[in-house]
Amino acid sequence: MNLLSSFMPALQPVATAVNDQTAELFQFHRGQDVFFMLMLVAFLMMFIRRYEWGVALATLLVFATSFPLYLLAQTGILGADLSIELIIGGAFAAITLVIAIGVFLGHISTISYILVGVLFVPCYMVAEWFLFQFLDGVLDAGGSILVHMVAAYWGWGVILGLRNKAVLEEPADTSVHSVSFVWLASMLLMVLWPSFVTALLPTEDIIPGMANTYLAMVGSILTTYLILWVLKRTIDPLVFTYAILAGGVAIGASVDLATPLQSWIIGLVAGAISTLSFLFLDGWLRDKTGVWDTMGVHNLHGVPGILGGLVPIVLGFAGGSQAIAVVGTIVISLVLGFIVGLILRLLPKPTKMLDDAEAFPAEEMRATDPA
Amino acid sequence: MNLLSSFMPALQPVATAVNDQTAELFQFHRGQDVFFMLMLVAFLMMFIRRYEWGVALATLLVFATSFPLYLLAQTGILGADLSIELIIGGAFAAITLVIAIGVFLGHISTISYILVGVLFVPCYMVAEWFLFQFLDGVLDAGGSILVHMVAAYWGWGVILGLRNKAVLEEPADTSVHSVSFVWLASMLLMVLWPSFVTALLPTEDIIPGMANTYLAMVGSILTTYLILWVLKRTIDPLVFTYAILAGGVAIGASVDLATPLQSWIIGLVAGAISTLSFLFLDGWLRDKTGVWDTMGVHNLHGVPGILGGLVPIVLGFAGGSQAIAVVGTIVISLVLGFIVGLILRLLPKPTKMLDDAEAFPAEEMRATDPA
Amino acid sequence: MNLLSSFMPALQPVATAVNDQTAELFQFHRGQDVFFMLMLVAFLMMFIRRYEWGVALATLLVFATSFPLYLLAQTGILGADLSIELIIGGAFAAITLVIAIGVFLGHISTISYILVGVLFVPCYMVAEWFLFQFLDGVLDAGGSILVHMVAAYWGWGVILGLRNKAVLEEPADTSVHSVSFVWLASMLLMVLWPSFVTALLPTEDIIPGMANTYLAMVGSILTTYLILWVLKRTIDPLVFTYAILAGGVAIGASVDLATPLQSWIIGLVAGAISTLSFLFLDGWLRDKTGVWDTMGVHNLHGVPGILGGLVPIVLGFAGGSQAIAVVGTIVISLVLGFIVGLILRLLPKPTKMLDDAEAFPAEEMRATDPA
Repeated sequence: MNLLSSFMPALQPVATAVNDQTAELFQFHRGQDVFFMLMLVAFLMMFIRRYEWGVALATLLVFATSFPLYLLAQTGILGADLSIELIIGGAFAAITLVIAIGVFLGHISTISYILVGVLFVPCYMVAEWFLFQFLDGVLDAGGSILVHMVAAYWGWGVILGLRNKAVLEEPADTSVHSVSFVWLASMLLMVLWPSFVTALLPTEDIIPGMANTYLAMVGSILTTYLILWVLKRTIDPLVFTYAILAGGVAIGASVDLATPLQSWIIGLVAGAISTLSFLFLDGWLRDKTGVWDTMGVHNLHGVPGILGGLVPIVLGFAGGSQAIAVVGTIVISLVLGFIVGLILRLLPKPTKMLDDAEAFPAEEMRATDPA
Repeated sequence: MNLLSSFMPALQPVATAVNDQTAELFQFHRGQDVFFMLMLVAFLMMFIRRYEWGVALATLLVFATSFPLYLLAQTGILGADLSIELIIGGAFAAITLVIAIGVFLGHISTISYILVGVLFVPCYMVAEWFLFQFLDGVLDAGGSILVHMVAAYWGWGVILGLRNKAVLEEPADTSVHSVSFVWLASMLLMVLWPSFVTALLPTEDIIPGMANTYLAMVGSILTTYLILWVLKRTIDPLVFTYAILAGGVAIGASVDLATPLQSWIIGLVAGAISTLSFLFLDGWLRDKTGVWDTMGVHNLHGVPGILGGLVPIVLGFAGGSQAIAVVGTIVISLVLGFIVGLILRLLPKPTKMLDDAEAFPAEEMRATDPA
Repeated sequence: MNLLSSFMPALQPVATAVNDQTAELFQFHRGQDVFFMLMLVAFLMMFIRRYEWGVALATLLVFATSFPLYLLAQTGILGADLSIELIIGGAFAAITLVIAIGVFLGHISTISYILVGVLFVPCYMVAEWFLFQFLDGVLDAGGSILVHMVAAYWGWGVILGLRNKAVLEEPADTSVHSVSFVWLASMLLMVLWPSFVTALLPTEDIIPGMANTYLAMVGSILTTYLILWVLKRTIDPLVFTYAILAGGVAIGASVDLATPLQSWIIGLVAGAISTLSFLFLDGWLRDKTGVWDTMGVHNLHGVPGILGGLVPIVLGFAGGSQAIAVVGTIVISLVLGFIVGLILRLLPKPTKMLDDAEAFPAEEMRATDPA
């Protein structure tokens, strides 16, 4: 513990500060990494061999609607300046939606995603208003609540309103390389994660935030592997590649406050609860609700998001408003998502579910000989 | 429109400037992104299942010859300093060639690409001289003309001189994952694009340029999807993944001048004309000329490049010299490319076309059981 | 030569310097690229179609143990501050191990990699102490010795101690896309390499280092292709994609000292000797030792690492201590690796070798129809 406690002190303060434009240019690069992560989330969800291109298309369609609409609403209605903070804010809104559609990918027709992008933006802005205007002193620098919890519970609201149970009967076969794309996405998301959680932090918090984020990540790798090995004696790659990111989800709300050791422990715990959610909670929820969280969003973003939202209370940085933020976000996201789900229910059902043939000339384009 | 007009004002100016070295170090990162994009262009062209490695190899061979040769010519003949601007200039020359070979990939033998790299550099330097030495006041910060138009028309000059019609008979089957690599490349190119168009801009233009570029990109996603859906009721992924990048091609010449709303509209128009070029112009050109633009370079880089080159005139930033730049670039690139095509015609024909077996022990290495 | 000599002068000095925090924030980005490269090394090793996920899992397990343990040892035992330099130092330690396991991937059971991560850290710290504490004036800014040589010879020490000859009988079939992932990894490693070799350099050396690194890289592409074509008339993609990185390995120790022309020549030579090592030395070593360097680590990191370590002597920047550093690193790494190999030999043998089925439910998850 004496050794570990030496892990405690944050990084030494830096003498000289950076000026405004320099700080903004660094945000250019961290912001760009957030857009990079947005695209990688699509590849994290590409494990269904017959449904890869459709995931990428859905990602691009919701990005193409939610990002400019958020910027338009902020500048046009709320009178914000189109600054780098706002660009990153738009990327946060879009990536939240890209995570959220993981709950109901394959449940709706492709064209519907344009409507999804339009309907999501006001929902997201309500959650944003609730957390940072209505409430006071909520800690969420890295988006544990605003990004991950909103994504999981808004998405769950949608499937509960949509109730397309037919998708449960669809096959979801994988292939070596569809799963290898998931490995690629997971491993690169881990690398870029510090840019995401520090994107809106003051410059002096960026490097400590980087150390904390990577330490949380490697903690999750360890517990995810050990729990899967102890309980199952085999590693399900679709649990492992997801749950190892839970440390990044959970560190979000305290990335600028936790010590390195605390961050590593947050990662250990987050990886463990995410893995257990995949193993036990996922099936239980499916049985109880009769709907299927296609990409297990709740197990990676929902539960670890709640953990992350509550960590600042445990560490003594935040009080009651933080708890209200967590509970209120679940309620608001579920309700607004449910309404969107009911609207989507009125649209024509997809001709095929979890299948690229719904949108693409996939039959012709899939090779008939192995490659 | 009142809402939209609020989109108009550019970002607020930043008080304090960055010093020389800081600006250069930021260019290090944007420059590195340009090299990243150069590699991604190879993966954008990897949809032919039996011809993936050959595309990567050709990309590396032309990079390995054109990049150092351009630096050598600039420093050795023209007496330039080996600065970060010159390194980025060399990356621009190399990526222009990597785009250009897309027109005739599979038409020539692998070893010929070394000669292609050598012959391209003087052609590119003539175009560069024409645009920025011979002409005055040409706007092309983001390479709509120098990179995209030169690539498309120089490449077309080459196939017109080469006239290897046999390649038209070759199969070009795809597979799920060969096309998934194209999705990966297209989505990451979109993310990195702001670094490319702002690589040589003064620091105060970088963040507005980022906003403009992403807005142009999402505009193209929207029109590309809608036109394909309306006209075809199915989304050809090889048209979609290409045409959504047209906004980035077209914003190049006015990235530092257009407003966010103008940028979004440029993206909408660029995506539309690129999609229509793939659907109608591509086949028409193939019939008329009897040669095949393997990767449809003309539809993504040629037509949207012309649009981008002319946009500054439409927006009132540029005058006649801009129009001369566009027309002159077409002529110069076609003529110089044609000469290179005639030279390449003298070389031995490839043993196999559009097939990795031309260069690699592909038969042995392709798996015989599915994976 | 007159032309070439114009390549000689280093970049012009920059007037104004960057302040401490700005320099650290630039290190954030170069450091992040090092973590990116760590993940890409896994994909560089994914060419065995039936053993892709296992390579990624092993990479993450050794990363998850070695990175925090190195930080803990440095801060806890040696009293270092947790600065950006230390984070990058930890990434260097971890990437060295990720390269090293390439020598014995598939030789041990998955869970053993956790022990490997723990045992590697003290070995690495001994090598680090030897090079920079015990010896004086050793030049190795870019890790030719500390990263690449330690990886190769420590890894070789391990297989010599482990002596699991059974793995030699295992099939190692590739597929089109398992090899395409290798192309992706190799090409992106090339792009990010300047961040790696300049990660710990003073800011004024970063841009010259970028030019030197890319010039070394393109030099290796050229000689690797030409030698394979001349000697074999066919390009083995698993030799090509590896050997083209030799320029980056070899430039490491003199990235801040060599001229651009010298760097290009270093790359030409490094690509040549790496290719020849793959073609001739690899098989000879396998016959002599009876053990198999699974990923040919010695051919890319060992031999070019020695070359890189000796280059500063050839260029007249370093003297005897540099030679002692090279020889001593081979001895220390082999001995310490050998001890670790003997320990690993005591652990249960893997149920399957070079096969994802050892750790994953691979049989069920591999698609039965082509994709």
